[in-house]
Amino acid sequence: MTPQRWLERFAAALAKGDIDAASSLFEPGGFWRDLVAFTWTLKTFEGRAEIKAMLAAVLSNVRPSGWGIRGISSPGEAWFTFETAVGRGIGHLRLREGRAWTLLTTLQELKGFEEKAGRTREWGTEHGVLPERKSWLERKVEREKSLLSGEQQPFVLIVGGGQGGIGLAARLKRLDVPALVVEKNPRAGDSWRKRYKSLCLHDPVWYDHMPYLPFPDHWPVFSPKDRIGDWLEMYVKVMDLDYWTYSECVGARFDKEKSIWNVEVKRGHESHLLKPTHLVLATGMSGVPNMPRIPGAESFRGTLVHSSAHPGGEGWRGKRCVVLGSNNSAHDIAADLWEHGAAEVTMVQRSPTVVVRSEMLMELAWGKLYSQAALEAGITTEIADLTLAATPFRLLPEMQKPIYEEIKKRDAELYSGLERAGFRFHFGEDGSGLHSVYLRRGAGYYIDVGASQLVIDGRIKLRQGTIQNLKDGTAVLSDGTELPADLVVSATGYGSMNGWAAKLISKEVADKVGKCWGLGSDTKYDPGPWVGELRNMWKPTQQPNLWFHGGNLMQSRHYSLYLALQLKARLEGIPTPTYYLDPVHHLE
Amino acid sequence: MTPQRWLERFAAALAKGDIDAASSLFEPGGFWRDLVAFTWTLKTFEGRAEIKAMLAAVLSNVRPSGWGIRGISSPGEAWFTFETAVGRGIGHLRLREGRAWTLLTTLQELKGFEEKAGRTREWGTEHGVLPERKSWLERKVEREKSLLSGEQQPFVLIVGGGQGGIGLAARLKRLDVPALVVEKNPRAGDSWRKRYKSLCLHDPVWYDHMPYLPFPDHWPVFSPKDRIGDWLEMYVKVMDLDYWTYSECVGARFDKEKSIWNVEVKRGHESHLLKPTHLVLATGMSGVPNMPRIPGAESFRGTLVHSSAHPGGEGWRGKRCVVLGSNNSAHDIAADLWEHGAAEVTMVQRSPTVVVRSEMLMELAWGKLYSQAALEAGITTEIADLTLAATPFRLLPEMQKPIYEEIKKRDAELYSGLERAGFRFHFGEDGSGLHSVYLRRGAGYYIDVGASQLVIDGRIKLRQGTIQNLKDGTAVLSDGTELPADLVVSATGYGSMNGWAAKLISKEVADKVGKCWGLGSDTKYDPGPWVGELRNMWKPTQQPNLWFHGGNLMQSRHYSLYLALQLKARLEGIPTPTYYLDPVHHLE
Repeated sequence: MTPQRWLERFAAALAKGDIDAASSLFEPGGFWRDLVAFTWTLKTFEGRAEIKAMLAAVLSNVRPSGWGIRGISSPGEAWFTFETAVGRGIGHLRLREGRAWTLLTTLQELKGFEEKAGRTREWGTEHGVLPERKSWLERKVEREKSLLSGEQQPFVLIVGGGQGGIGLAARLKRLDVPALVVEKNPRAGDSWRKRYKSLCLHDPVWYDHMPYLPFPDHWPVFSPKDRIGDWLEMYVKVMDLDYWTYSECVGARFDKEKSIWNVEVKRGHESHLLKPTHLVLATGMSGVPNMPRIPGAESFRGTLVHSSAHPGGEGWRGKRCVVLGSNNSAHDIAADLWEHGAAEVTMVQRSPTVVVRSEMLMELAWGKLYSQAALEAGITTEIADLTLAATPFRLLPEMQKPIYEEIKKRDAELYSGLERAGFRFHFGEDGSGLHSVYLRRGAGYYIDVGASQLVIDGRIKLRQGTIQNLKDGTAVLSDGTELPADLVVSATGYGSMNGWAAKLISKEVADKVGKCWGLGSDTKYDPGPWVGELRNMWKPTQQPNLWFHGGNLMQSRHYSLYLALQLKARLEGIPTPTYYLDPVHHLE
Repeated sequence: MTPQRWLERFAAALAKGDIDAASSLFEPGGFWRDLVAFTWTLKTFEGRAEIKAMLAAVLSNVRPSGWGIRGISSPGEAWFTFETAVGRGIGHLRLREGRAWTLLTTLQELKGFEEKAGRTREWGTEHGVLPERKSWLERKVEREKSLLSGEQQPFVLIVGGGQGGIGLAARLKRLDVPALVVEKNPRAGDSWRKRYKSLCLHDPVWYDHMPYLPFPDHWPVFSPKDRIGDWLEMYVKVMDLDYWTYSECVGARFDKEKSIWNVEVKRGHESHLLKPTHLVLATGMSGVPNMPRIPGAESFRGTLVHSSAHPGGEGWRGKRCVVLGSNNSAHDIAADLWEHGAAEVTMVQRSPTVVVRSEMLMELAWGKLYSQAALEAGITTEIADLTLAATPFRLLPEMQKPIYEEIKKRDAELYSGLERAGFRFHFGEDGSGLHSVYLRRGAGYYIDVGASQLVIDGRIKLRQGTIQNLKDGTAVLSDGTELPADLVVSATGYGSMNGWAAKLISKEVADKVGKCWGLGSDTKYDPGPWVGELRNMWKPTQQPNLWFHGGNLMQSRHYSLYLALQLKARLEGIPTPTYYLDPVHHLE
């Protein structure tokens, strides 16, 4: 069966409400991933039973129609478009022996509420003569004033003005959803600027575009952090976003009766009480820093700091430095200290790390979708994002394993070097590599840009275990070693994003929502049960009107669309029956 | 003959050095427009004799080759690419009955000095471990310091940081040509922000993109001035340009022996002596304000101001206002005063004005190249610019006349209204409309966005003549009328750009260079002889190492490429024998 024929039969079955016929077009264990179009959430259905149950519940409301093939990506694979009662969508189909192995349906726009772009963009000036005409600037200033005075309330308050909050705000702006971003730093982009000096993005530029305004084609492959800072600052300005700097959210409480939030924001020295209908925590997947309690820290004569607060290697020339942890930040910071002439840099490795060279990832993993070659082959950023979305998370590991087999061969020298140096590395519990580890726990890997060689050469010294305690000028390791230390950097990562809910709202709400991120893959840091999508991200949670947004630049870009559409529908009073809510899940 | 066949024969003739054969492939009166590729200047050759003379002089140096058709735009018309000894180019060919009616050759890049973009973009970070590694920010700060201290001198100094200077600086940046922009205002974009409040661009967005970083697709059709200001400010930042604000060029002197400029720049309260090799005046086509001397101005009790210094209608409610002039600024300012509730607004018309409604221009004039429809038909900004360049200036008027015949019909009501109101309008001396008038004198038109209706309705009062003198609170017109006036705005335009040379360098140099702009069309404000290109713009002038850059956003975008390539060639020591220099021309 061709994709064309399959889609016709599928459309006919749905039109008739024949759920059995529709589901029998799938393999018995086939997948249907829906991003908001059918379910008003992000959910992957696995097997005919789940698909049938979903259709039984939603089909009469969704009323899908207008299915049409838009392009064949390879034999048995096709892109298509479709409509629902309220929106228009794009989907992807993969057939095996005439049945659907995977189906993707995504909502792309709401009918009657399309983004104003291209032919429908604003006119900018009103031709004609209008007494008391207000200029764009005057209207902007008025909007700013009425937000500040509280006369106008944002429909959406976004806490955190990094790439995530900014990209979402841009999408909401294009959808005419009143939104305000609050950012504690003095300038947009400072969350990048303030990090250690040598930081560059570990993902290549093709992966990193913001929505609507891609980087120009000379933008470097790996952006230095300060350039990203500048880009974000500019983006806020030219996208005309409502964005408060120096503004920290210090508390939020949901008013159940009115269904609005009461949010206290400290803006410089002023306190503002905001009353948004929706609250988005975009404080970063790198949420609240994990800072292990190390006995003796109080009496430690050296400097002890979490990686997020470590400004860089400058000033540590001739000093003895210990870095606790062995993931991205730990490697970057150790290498930076070494580059700045630290007398001794020791990395203390607590658990095995996925190590892959950046070049290998570009060539073998990202390259097919996010590279100059892909772009020249017509794979736009949007197509790349949708292509990635078209593979259910359950299938990713098997698709990734061969890549890491190949990487292991090509970089045999690197890995044997690391082995000789005593560095514990792996490719994840099931060998499916970095992407899996990222989705499962958002950490646990080093994208090698050079520091592994320092470890191999012994210029970064390596110790296994952890820091048992600190005393005077010494870090005592779990194996009893005493390391004289002027500096200890704890590159020990971050907690789950619901830590922010606990901090800003209440422990009760945080507990009700449960852990964010992770798939339930039944691996060490991501215990089951399997949920098949990232927990609580970009979709309704157990707490009404509370949303989590984050992830890397690619995820922020892509998933912000679905989050923005969910919010727009709520603003416009379009019914948004959520088919499914993640059950609450806690790590312990 | 097909374009393919023609190009083969042309290539063969040039390869053999057979100039007769090459020129006989043109119509006897055929045109060859060259933008830098053959002549190291911008020059249109009209007729076989001129073409032969040019080829005789340059062919042995240019050594063109590699001619290949790249696309047929319509029967007998084609795009092609070619190479010269030092560069690569794009060209366009129009055949009539087997002979070239028009040929365009443009230089697009210099071999070995291609812009780093796409696959050749910078890596951004240096993978590996580098003791004393400098971050992007540190290198940027060092560059800024060494420019400030004078330790490093820019190869090119650009005076004026509006869209012209900024776009050129971006092109030079991508070509690795050290350039510094000096702008007298506190922020990039202020030259727009400081203008009257109601100002929006009169050209639609598709015409207005800056190089490399187009506006996103929701950008309004007619940009409000403050948005353009913000865009330019952002552009300077993210394109990483060297740009001094609060910096005014107060004097420049060419050192003939060293072939460098000595330029005095006041930066805030500091004085800097800069020694660039090349000096670009990008102070705007709207150069030095033309302020007529009006007898009695000293004793005038009201406010007398040039349009460039008029901040807008606010504050003039209930006041009597006179606007001298009847072009774009005069109309915008008069309408803005009326919208702000001025008691009386009188426009004093000195000479006839070309009036066309903005919507007509979009539909009939710009629309084929610069519109959403054009874009969707595959006409990118670059193709649109080159298409426009492919028509020699000599042929433009005849192509434009039918457009204005059509506009006259469609907007018959507007024009009969203006006639009834006593407003003197025309479509240029030869009926070829706005584009011609713009090229000939850079002024003399109003793109109607509503003010004409105010004139027709008598809400903007109209007087013919000029202001004879001012006395006390009255403007006395040439017909003897005495108009009580609290405000007189002199919307009387700007002088030629060489006025800037007179102001910044010397009258001697300004006189040596002569008038900028204009084609020598033998019309009232653009006397002959015919030169066929805009005088002195974007090409070598009679003053070595002095360049003029300006025009609207489209011209600044397109022609900055050729100016940047000319400067890059000089930086790299590539020979740039200039085939032709405009003879000096003065208006009086």
